[in-house]
This record gives sequence, C-alpha cells and structure tokens, in this order.
Amino acid sequence: MSEGSGAPAARVVLQQCLRARLQVRPPGPEEEEGQFVQIDRGMVIYVCFFKGATEDILPKMVSSLLSVRLCEADSGKLQSVTELPGSVLIVPQATLGGKVKGRSMQYHNNIGKEDGLRLYSAFVSLCEEQLATAGAAVTVKHGTYGNRQVLKLDTNGPYTHLMEF
Amino acid sequence: MSEGSGAPAARVVLQQCLRARLQVRPPGPEEEEGQFVQIDRGMVIYVCFFKGATEDILPKMVSSLLSVRLCEADSGKLQSVTELPGSVLIVPQATLGGKVKGRSMQYHNNIGKEDGLRLYSAFVSLCEEQLATAGAAVTVKHGTYGNRQVLKLDTNGPYTHLMEF
Repeated sequence: MSEGSGAPAARVVLQQCLRARLQVRPPGPEEEEGQFVQIDRGMVIYVCFFKGATEDILPKMVSSLLSVRLCEADSGKLQSVTELPGSVLIVPQATLGGKVKGRSMQYHNNIGKEDGLRLYSAFVSLCEEQLATAGAAVTVKHGTYGNRQVLKLDTNGPYTHLMEF
Repeated sequence: MSEGSGAPAARVVLQQCLRARLQVRPPGPEEEEGQFVQIDRGMVIYVCFFKGATEDILPKMVSSLLSVRLCEADSGKLQSVTELPGSVLIVPQATLGGKVKGRSMQYHNNIGKEDGLRLYSAFVSLCEEQLATAGAAVTVKHGTYGNRQVLKLDTNGPYTHLMEF
C-alpha cells in the first residue's frame, strides 16, 4: 500500500485483460452508441486522486504501475505491462475514493474536479510518454474525466490489485 | 475504510455490471470451454481475506455489502443490490491482498488456503441466505476458490468501490 504514513494521495485498482472497451463519448442524436476506445491484451488502470494530491506523486506512481510484474506472459512468467508488451487503458474512477457511512458511500476525501482533471491528464500523458518507446503494438487509451465509464472487459483472470500512493 | 484500527481482515472490490460471466471449471479434454456461471444486472464482489480473519466478521461484512447503496436504479437513484434487486457474482481474488515490494507483488498477509476456502465458502453461503428472500430474478453465483477467475464483464459504468473490514 502507501509507503508513507497517513492517508494516500491516490488509489489505483489494476485488472489484467485480453480486451477492454471503454466509452469516451456518450451517445448523441447522430451517434447512437457514442464513441469508444479499445485495447487488446494489457492492463486496465482505474485511478482516483484524493484531496491534497499533487503532480509530485505522478512520476513514481507511473513508474511503479508500468514496471510492477503483474502480467502473465505466454510462458506463464509474470512481467510488467511494459515488458509484456501490453497496452494500457486508463479509467478515471472517482468512486474508488468512497468511504462507507451507514448505507451510503461518501466521497469527502476526493480531490476537487478541476484539480482531479489536471492530475488525471498529467497522469495519462506520463503513461503515454513512458510507453511510447515500447513499440507499435502497445497503446495507451483512456477514458474521459467526469464521464460515465461504460466498460466491457474480457479477461483470462483479472488478477485485481490495489495500489495506493 | 476499516472501522477498527490496524490492518483489515478482508478486502473487497465491488463493480456494477449489466452482465458478468465467470469460469468455474477450467477446460478439459471433453469440455473445450470449461464451465461458466453468469449473472445479468447486479454487482461483482471480488473478495480476499487476510491472515487472522475469522467468521466473526462475515455477518457484518455481508450485511454491509448487500445493503450499501451503490447500484443505479432505472430512475437514476442509488439502491442496494438487494433493493435493485440485482444478482451477485462473488469472485475469490487473492491478488487483492498484494503489497508492492520493488517490482514484485508479495502476498505475505494473505490468509492460508485452507482457512481462506472455509471463510470464502461461509461468505458465499451467507450472501445466498440474505438474498434468498429477494425474489426469483436475483441469483448468487460464485467462482471456485483457487481457480483462475476467467471473467467477462459488461458494464454501464463499473463504479469500482473498495471496502475493507
């Protein structure tokens, strides 16, 4: 989990996928299904930032997420998504910041929308930069901040992991 | 998250779904695809127990998971999976107990396999009991402990939540 003491600045859930498809623009009058992005083999990164998070955490966060060995290679050996090489789908997921109070979820510790969008955009850019050298088969796709994240996921085992920064 | 102090006894990730399909028996010589269970609208519960977890936590855990309002009704209002009423797919997910060390995930705090299976089975039974009265459209399906959890998920927004007990 978080290496420092106290509350985390960001929470991430990771799931491995064979294919993942995410809506990036909701349906409109001339586009019944909306617009989607898709990755094949790789990793889905659900990300949420908390109040007080700053860009300082991003380099370590991205480096850790892209280098930790969670992906199953054809050999059965675990590799990082960069080594696999696999694609990455980044999904903004503010619900991850929720805390149960009675029968409701509260999101009081979530970062504000403006700062959240800025950090999210910077996080996506850093992932793109780090994976840009990994080859043509590897892409970074990402959801639109603030949208409903209509997602289809096809896995050979999601191997869901939690990481906090 | 955890209401008590110290390390949690169980970690749960929740995702809302329109449909979820999980392999419960791997492919064999006479069954090329293996066996699957499926739910339609409802909630996927990924669950992991830590060392020291006992059955004492299960009643509160199940009651909280099935009564917290995370599911979007047709009206847009949030309801519990019981109120929706929606089905539940329980996925044993030991990877949720992972802790990053360098570039590897370690699972030293995870419960042992035998105790883990016992708690998982009791957790599934309690969920079944609590949802048994909710009507015919509601089912509880669950993965096989220790198996690879081959999963397909179709969502209108997974609204991923983390809960610890």
